[in-house]
Amino acid sequence: MFKAKISITLRQSILDPQGKAIHHALESMEMNDVSEVRIGKFVEMTLNSSTKEQAEQTVEQACKKLLANPVMEDFHFVVTQI
Amino acid sequence: MFKAKISITLRQSILDPQGKAIHHALESMEMNDVSEVRIGKFVEMTLNSSTKEQAEQTVEQACKKLLANPVMEDFHFVVTQI
Repeated sequence: MFKAKISITLRQSILDPQGKAIHHALESMEMNDVSEVRIGKFVEMTLNSSTKEQAEQTVEQACKKLLANPVMEDFHFVVTQI
Repeated sequence: MFKAKISITLRQSILDPQGKAIHHALESMEMNDVSEVRIGKFVEMTLNSSTKEQAEQTVEQACKKLLANPVMEDFHFVVTQI
Protein backbone atom coordinates (compact mmCIF):
# COMPACT_ATOMS: atom_id res chain seq x y z
CA MET A 1 0.00 0.00 0.00
CA PHE A 2 1.23 3.47 -0.84
CA LYS A 3 0.18 6.92 0.29
CA ALA A 4 0.52 9.91 -2.03
CA LYS A 5 0.44 13.48 -0.76
CA ILE A 6 -0.29 15.81 -3.64
CA SER A 7 -0.21 19.59 -3.46
CA ILE A 8 -1.69 21.60 -6.32
CA THR A 9 -0.80 25.30 -6.38
CA LEU A 10 -1.68 28.21 -8.63
CA ARG A 11 1.23 29.33 -10.82
CA GLN A 12 3.07 32.37 -9.54
CA SER A 13 1.80 34.55 -12.41
CA ILE A 14 -1.87 33.83 -11.61
CA LEU A 15 -3.63 36.19 -9.20
CA ASP A 16 -5.01 34.54 -6.05
CA PRO A 17 -7.86 36.63 -4.54
CA GLN A 18 -8.66 33.94 -1.93
CA GLY A 19 -5.07 34.09 -0.68
CA LYS A 20 -5.22 37.91 -0.63
CA ALA A 21 -8.42 37.78 1.46
CA ILE A 22 -6.76 35.47 4.00
CA HIS A 23 -3.70 37.73 4.10
CA HIS A 24 -5.92 40.74 4.92
CA ALA A 25 -7.74 38.74 7.60
CA LEU A 26 -4.40 37.75 9.20
CA GLU A 27 -3.27 41.39 9.15
CA SER A 28 -6.46 42.48 10.89
CA MET A 29 -5.69 39.81 13.51
CA GLU A 30 -2.29 41.50 14.02
CA MET A 31 -0.18 38.78 12.44
CA ASN A 32 1.97 41.30 10.66
CA ASP A 33 4.93 39.08 9.80
CA VAL A 34 2.97 37.34 7.03
CA SER A 35 3.91 38.83 3.65
CA GLU A 36 2.07 36.58 1.19
CA VAL A 37 -0.56 33.85 1.25
CA ARG A 38 -1.45 31.57 -1.64
CA ILE A 39 -4.11 28.88 -1.56
CA GLY A 40 -4.04 25.54 -3.32
CA LYS A 41 -5.53 22.08 -3.07
CA PHE A 42 -4.20 19.13 -1.13
CA VAL A 43 -5.08 15.58 -2.14
CA GLU A 44 -4.26 12.48 -0.12
CA MET A 45 -4.47 9.28 -2.15
CA THR A 46 -4.16 5.70 -0.95
CA LEU A 47 -3.00 3.26 -3.63
CA ASN A 48 -2.71 -0.53 -3.72
CA SER A 49 -0.19 -0.55 -6.58
CA SER A 50 2.37 -3.35 -6.63
CA THR A 51 5.42 -1.08 -6.89
CA LYS A 52 6.28 2.49 -5.90
CA GLU A 53 7.03 3.31 -9.57
CA GLN A 54 3.53 2.20 -10.59
CA ALA A 55 1.97 4.26 -7.78
CA GLU A 56 3.95 7.34 -8.87
CA GLN A 57 2.86 6.82 -12.46
CA THR A 58 -0.82 6.57 -11.46
CA VAL A 59 -0.57 9.73 -9.33
CA GLU A 60 1.14 11.64 -12.15
CA GLN A 61 -1.56 10.58 -14.63
CA ALA A 62 -4.33 11.49 -12.15
CA CYS A 63 -2.81 14.95 -11.65
CA LYS A 64 -2.30 15.58 -15.36
CA LYS A 65 -5.67 14.29 -16.52
CA LEU A 66 -8.01 15.22 -13.68
CA LEU A 67 -6.75 17.01 -10.60
CA ALA A 68 -4.65 19.91 -11.89
CA ASN A 69 -5.37 22.45 -14.60
CA PRO A 70 -2.09 22.48 -16.53
CA VAL A 71 -2.64 26.06 -17.76
CA MET A 72 -2.98 27.61 -14.31
CA GLU A 73 -1.67 25.11 -11.79
CA ASP A 74 1.48 23.22 -10.82
CA PHE A 75 1.49 20.01 -8.84
CA HIS A 76 3.97 18.24 -6.59
CA PHE A 77 3.60 14.88 -4.93
CA VAL A 78 5.41 12.50 -2.61
CA VAL A 79 4.64 8.77 -2.56
CA THR A 80 5.52 6.76 0.54
CA GLN A 81 4.98 3.11 1.40
CA ILE A 82 2.61 2.49 4.32
CA MET B 1 12.34 35.18 5.04
CA PHE B 2 10.54 31.94 5.72
CA LYS B 3 8.18 29.82 3.67
CA ALA B 4 5.48 27.75 5.35
CA LYS B 5 3.72 24.90 3.58
CA ILE B 6 0.49 24.11 5.39
CA SER B 7 -1.78 21.17 4.62
CA ILE B 8 -5.26 21.09 6.12
CA THR B 9 -7.07 17.77 5.94
CA LEU B 10 -10.47 16.50 7.03
CA ARG B 11 -10.30 14.20 10.05
CA GLN B 12 -10.51 10.50 9.21
CA SER B 13 -13.97 10.17 10.81
CA ILE B 14 -15.48 12.91 8.61
CA LEU B 15 -17.03 11.84 5.29
CA ASP B 16 -15.46 13.41 2.20
CA PRO B 17 -17.93 13.40 -0.73
CA GLN B 18 -15.58 15.48 -2.92
CA GLY B 19 -12.85 12.86 -2.47
CA LYS B 20 -15.34 10.07 -3.25
CA ALA B 21 -16.36 11.84 -6.48
CA ILE B 22 -12.73 12.11 -7.58
CA HIS B 23 -12.18 8.44 -6.70
CA HIS B 24 -15.13 7.44 -8.93
CA ALA B 25 -13.82 9.63 -11.75
CA LEU B 26 -10.39 7.98 -11.51
CA GLU B 27 -12.00 4.53 -11.58
CA SER B 28 -13.94 5.44 -14.72
CA MET B 29 -10.58 6.52 -16.22
CA GLU B 30 -9.29 3.00 -15.45
CA MET B 31 -6.93 3.98 -12.68
CA ASN B 32 -7.95 1.01 -10.58
CA ASP B 33 -5.05 0.95 -8.13
CA VAL B 34 -6.41 3.99 -6.26
CA SER B 35 -8.25 2.84 -3.13
CA GLU B 36 -9.09 6.13 -1.39
CA VAL B 37 -8.99 9.86 -2.14
CA ARG B 38 -9.37 12.63 0.40
CA ILE B 39 -9.31 16.33 -0.38
CA GLY B 40 -7.93 19.11 1.76
CA LYS B 41 -6.56 22.62 1.49
CA PHE B 42 -2.99 23.66 0.87
CA VAL B 43 -1.73 27.06 1.99
CA GLU B 44 1.66 28.52 1.10
CA MET B 45 2.65 31.41 3.35
CA THR B 46 5.67 33.70 3.06
CA LEU B 47 6.76 35.25 6.34
CA ASN B 48 9.32 37.93 7.21
CA SER B 49 9.65 36.84 10.84
CA SER B 50 13.03 37.34 12.51
CA THR B 51 13.41 33.73 13.71
CA LYS B 52 12.12 30.34 12.60
CA GLU B 53 10.44 29.86 16.01
CA GLN B 54 8.49 33.10 15.56
CA ALA B 55 7.44 32.07 12.04
CA GLU B 56 6.25 28.69 13.34
CA GLN B 57 4.29 30.38 16.11
CA THR B 58 2.58 32.74 13.64
CA VAL B 59 1.66 29.85 11.32
CA GLU B 60 0.29 27.79 14.22
CA GLN B 61 -1.86 30.73 15.40
CA ALA B 62 -3.08 31.38 11.84
CA CYS B 63 -4.11 27.73 11.47
CA LYS B 64 -5.82 27.56 14.85
CA LYS B 65 -7.65 30.87 14.62
CA LEU B 66 -8.45 31.19 10.93
CA LEU B 67 -7.44 28.49 8.45
CA ALA B 68 -8.53 25.20 10.01
CA ASN B 69 -11.80 24.22 11.63
CA PRO B 70 -10.59 22.44 14.80
CA VAL B 71 -13.75 20.31 15.02
CA MET B 72 -13.43 18.77 11.56
CA GLU B 73 -9.89 19.37 10.35
CA ASP B 74 -6.28 18.63 11.22
CA PHE B 75 -3.34 20.71 10.03
CA HIS B 76 0.34 20.06 9.45
CA PHE B 77 2.99 22.54 8.40
CA VAL B 78 6.66 22.79 7.58
CA VAL B 79 8.56 26.07 7.84
CA THR B 80 11.78 26.49 5.84
CA GLN B 81 14.13 29.44 5.47
CA ILE B 82 14.33 30.91 1.96
